[in-house]
Amino acid sequence: MFNVAIVGATGVVGSTMVRVLEERGFPVTELRPLASARSAGTTVEYLGKPFTVQELTADSFEGITIALFTAGSERSRAFAHAAVAAGAVVIDNSSAFRMDPDVPLVVPEVNEADLEGHRGIVANPNCVAAPLVVALKPIADAVGIERVIVSSYQAVSGTGALAVAELRAQTAGNLSGTEPAPEVYPHPIAFNVLPHIDVFDGSGYTGEEIKVGNEARRMLHLPDLRVSATCVRVPVIHAHSQAVHIETTEPLSAAQAREILMVAPGVAVVDDPTANAYPLPRDAAGRDEVFVGRIRDDASHPRGLAMWIVSDNLRKGAATNAVQIAESLVMRGWL
Amino acid sequence: MFNVAIVGATGVVGSTMVRVLEERGFPVTELRPLASARSAGTTVEYLGKPFTVQELTADSFEGITIALFTAGSERSRAFAHAAVAAGAVVIDNSSAFRMDPDVPLVVPEVNEADLEGHRGIVANPNCVAAPLVVALKPIADAVGIERVIVSSYQAVSGTGALAVAELRAQTAGNLSGTEPAPEVYPHPIAFNVLPHIDVFDGSGYTGEEIKVGNEARRMLHLPDLRVSATCVRVPVIHAHSQAVHIETTEPLSAAQAREILMVAPGVAVVDDPTANAYPLPRDAAGRDEVFVGRIRDDASHPRGLAMWIVSDNLRKGAATNAVQIAESLVMRGWL
Repeated sequence: MFNVAIVGATGVVGSTMVRVLEERGFPVTELRPLASARSAGTTVEYLGKPFTVQELTADSFEGITIALFTAGSERSRAFAHAAVAAGAVVIDNSSAFRMDPDVPLVVPEVNEADLEGHRGIVANPNCVAAPLVVALKPIADAVGIERVIVSSYQAVSGTGALAVAELRAQTAGNLSGTEPAPEVYPHPIAFNVLPHIDVFDGSGYTGEEIKVGNEARRMLHLPDLRVSATCVRVPVIHAHSQAVHIETTEPLSAAQAREILMVAPGVAVVDDPTANAYPLPRDAAGRDEVFVGRIRDDASHPRGLAMWIVSDNLRKGAATNAVQIAESLVMRGWL
Repeated sequence: MFNVAIVGATGVVGSTMVRVLEERGFPVTELRPLASARSAGTTVEYLGKPFTVQELTADSFEGITIALFTAGSERSRAFAHAAVAAGAVVIDNSSAFRMDPDVPLVVPEVNEADLEGHRGIVANPNCVAAPLVVALKPIADAVGIERVIVSSYQAVSGTGALAVAELRAQTAGNLSGTEPAPEVYPHPIAFNVLPHIDVFDGSGYTGEEIKVGNEARRMLHLPDLRVSATCVRVPVIHAHSQAVHIETTEPLSAAQAREILMVAPGVAVVDDPTANAYPLPRDAAGRDEVFVGRIRDDASHPRGLAMWIVSDNLRKGAATNAVQIAESLVMRGWL
């Protein structure tokens, strides 16, 4: 049994982490919800019992075995080492340590073995990269993958609770002719799509788009994998979708890819288009699987495959994967 | 001065055609709105005067010079030849004749000369293909294009007025907890994205996705151009967006592509991402331009370019392009 801290316990990912720990029956002795001073004193319910949120400080981690961080990169950088010093293993959902060679970046279905020999911090991947590598790994193992082109359709809950509230309020206002000005996003998100997630760099890509490539290369152990992404925010509450085109090293037909994906860990194939069956964000919301459909031979490349991947950004894209990392650490004796 | 019939005058595209004829000062003597018996007797206003909608029959075209058809493929197949027999030139917005070698498929900025020698019917392209070729043509002319990968974010007005009503009603219902069941689409479109536009064929692609490639190849005069599309309906009212990755024959930097596009006919470059300036569907709605931004070197290919294209599907994707074809026919003396 373990004492588990959740840093950012009152946010959309943090509260999903509490639900996922419950659902999966993770062996928790003490749950210690941590957050900013503003949230301190409120309570988080776990298995029917209230746990009081404490203010996050460097002294918050005494007696903690596992600290799940999901309060942004700045807080991770400021407090993760204190947690490790107090004896905890940190599973960090921010991007702070994801490219640190001393920190494993892990999706257990893909590269669980990378957890071995961790130095106290494990990074949880980006919410687009995590489901992407779950779908790509079995194909990479079978025939190799050389190039990936991703266009994403990302839900607002990836931005946080304020963005969910903004989408709802803006949409209601738009329908009644009293649309409030945007505050969370630089442009209206109601009935709109925004090709802008994270900050732009000099290359014209955004940080989010660059993360998809960097993290996929690290987790797939394919340092030469060529990746280009266009990351787009869409007016969806939960679950990110991705239109993905890949180029394999050896040819693989869509039928073969479908067979491989049907038995791949963490993947649920939903691919009967003539029966209108394909992955949808509203169906994926609240689910832990990576849903894959629209699997077809890419008409534009002899070794090309196209597919459509949908996964709940708060679940496999964040909370579920973090809890799975904790489970792996426990099961393999790597805590 | 010309007598202009609009077949499907009461639909979303037909009524936009009336507005575009007005705005551009097209020399109309008589406007003859045609529609199904259900709409006959209603009126369409043109330059402040009401014109009574008449029921579409084979006898509807006497004295008509130009007939703009936008009432679906079935009605185009049934009535276009009657219009031609009556002496009209048909500009058809359906997919009925787009791949007919006897029928030019034209975006005037791209392949206006293909109109010469038409046999009475001209096809207006698909609402994704039209803006795509406007953006690709100047790049193809400069350095050649070999491959195009498109992921679309398509507005519901492309489906018609009932789909716009469904999105609004479903969204309002969702927000108030009384969401009606979908009728126009096979799944809810409110706060969802649907990777399904048009019907699926045996290849796993949809008709819409196949049209993008076929029509781009025809209009660009690049029969070997390799194209793969994923067409996705998103909860946006007007204007289609596209994340586009292209492979050119000779290298072209993003900076060079931006310079080429800045002077390209029909294109408006909106590409200052650090100032949050990129094309957005809500900004493009009601506009005739093809907006291009997020122009960048494709990190995954040495001769790759990525860009983001947005255009009003009812305008350049339909009505505006049809009226531009009519203008070309008049100006070049090809009526």
